[in-house]
Amino acid sequence: MRNILITIAYDGSGFAGWQRQPNARTVCGELERVLSSLCGFAVRLEGSSRTDAGVHALGQCASFTLPDGGIPTEHLVKAANDRLAKDRLEGVGEVMLLSAREMPEGFHARYSSTGKRYLYRIYNGPDKSPLRRTRFYQVSEKLDLAAMKEAAAPLRGTHDFKAFQAAGSTPRENTVRTIRSLTLEQEGSEIRLWVSGDGFLYRMVRIIAGTLVEAGLGKRNADSVREALAEQDRALAGHTAPPQGLYLQEVFFE
Amino acid sequence: MRNILITIAYDGSGFAGWQRQPNARTVCGELERVLSSLCGFAVRLEGSSRTDAGVHALGQCASFTLPDGGIPTEHLVKAANDRLAKDRLEGVGEVMLLSAREMPEGFHARYSSTGKRYLYRIYNGPDKSPLRRTRFYQVSEKLDLAAMKEAAAPLRGTHDFKAFQAAGSTPRENTVRTIRSLTLEQEGSEIRLWVSGDGFLYRMVRIIAGTLVEAGLGKRNADSVREALAEQDRALAGHTAPPQGLYLQEVFFE
Repeated sequence: MRNILITIAYDGSGFAGWQRQPNARTVCGELERVLSSLCGFAVRLEGSSRTDAGVHALGQCASFTLPDGGIPTEHLVKAANDRLAKDRLEGVGEVMLLSAREMPEGFHARYSSTGKRYLYRIYNGPDKSPLRRTRFYQVSEKLDLAAMKEAAAPLRGTHDFKAFQAAGSTPRENTVRTIRSLTLEQEGSEIRLWVSGDGFLYRMVRIIAGTLVEAGLGKRNADSVREALAEQDRALAGHTAPPQGLYLQEVFFE
Repeated sequence: MRNILITIAYDGSGFAGWQRQPNARTVCGELERVLSSLCGFAVRLEGSSRTDAGVHALGQCASFTLPDGGIPTEHLVKAANDRLAKDRLEGVGEVMLLSAREMPEGFHARYSSTGKRYLYRIYNGPDKSPLRRTRFYQVSEKLDLAAMKEAAAPLRGTHDFKAFQAAGSTPRENTVRTIRSLTLEQEGSEIRLWVSGDGFLYRMVRIIAGTLVEAGLGKRNADSVREALAEQDRALAGHTAPPQGLYLQEVFFE
């Protein structure tokens, strides 16, 4: 058996998320269709992250196994991209393979991952624009970047992030995660939140983004973030920021 | 009668262009539907520019007449945007009204216009991205900005731009136009072409962009641009750059 790891970029705005669904256009479904046809085998992808509808990826990963023989791995990227770009603008599809390589037996894009890095993009200006709507969380009221940075501090490190998990998530045995880095930077009207860690609970990055936006609006501070962590109560953390500002940037492996 | 001028922004990627069509989703069609319902009158819009499928606008204009009475002009923007944003992300639709005001009798968004300004965005980097595909002309080979600027010089001023009009355009009596300003600037991997003039022939800005990209690739120079202008031959100008890099920025009136 061959075990193949692919890295993928996509514009999430036209998809009902990553995970395959019987009656919706999903990134995984689109890729499985194209890869199965290229490989002559029913490809079943294991993605590193099940991104929600509207969420983008600059470096999603997925793995799949194939019988020996068939299309060489080094031809896979171009062949898949040609099909994914069919009838699309400028030879670039909404989904694109960035790389493909063979991995040792037992490698798995989700279980072998040691962490991920996400980018969350906020546009902070008085005027909302149709051209930013699928790419940014557009916040009209002025955000205080220093206040956002202060409120972000308690989130770094190892904590039980139960308060930062979508209500109604499938219960997890362990809600302790480590945030290795969390930085905020502003460039003109854009505020970028970068967060990397060993793993993320369901909608955790978006709840962190929503919480920090509330801090930027003066509605909460570092103490309220500490309290949410300590009480492990979803109601004490901020709102879930919208999916279109979120970009899966990179998946880490050993 | 009331004569109303609206300014409009839109993400052109989901539309078959500006102009109404019986069986396609167009910007004008979408706006006429919403405005007619708000005004209780079959609104017929006259747009300043008939942008092609995929072309964006940050400041398109359109005018329409209405019987006296009915919804006050100052309520039109919010009311229309609420409807245009229905079921859309974050209260922002793919089309958005920026302003609405009453104009004197006889004003017409197309015939009263004294000029327009367009932006053309080129992404010049080795890697194409699905996230840029509806927003940029992605050119992988390195472009020489200085060469593009040199080739742009002969286009400024008043010329017969017949060579820079899409082949097969409806014949125009007069193909003389004045380019008031044409500038190129680079910021990181992005090259922005700004062009303003008293009027533009069909696909003229995209043919100018394609011609300047060819100059940036070393395939032509200022002399070949002068020759195309002098010979008035479409075959001597460059290729038509793709629609998704084009943004109608502003429409000028007296």
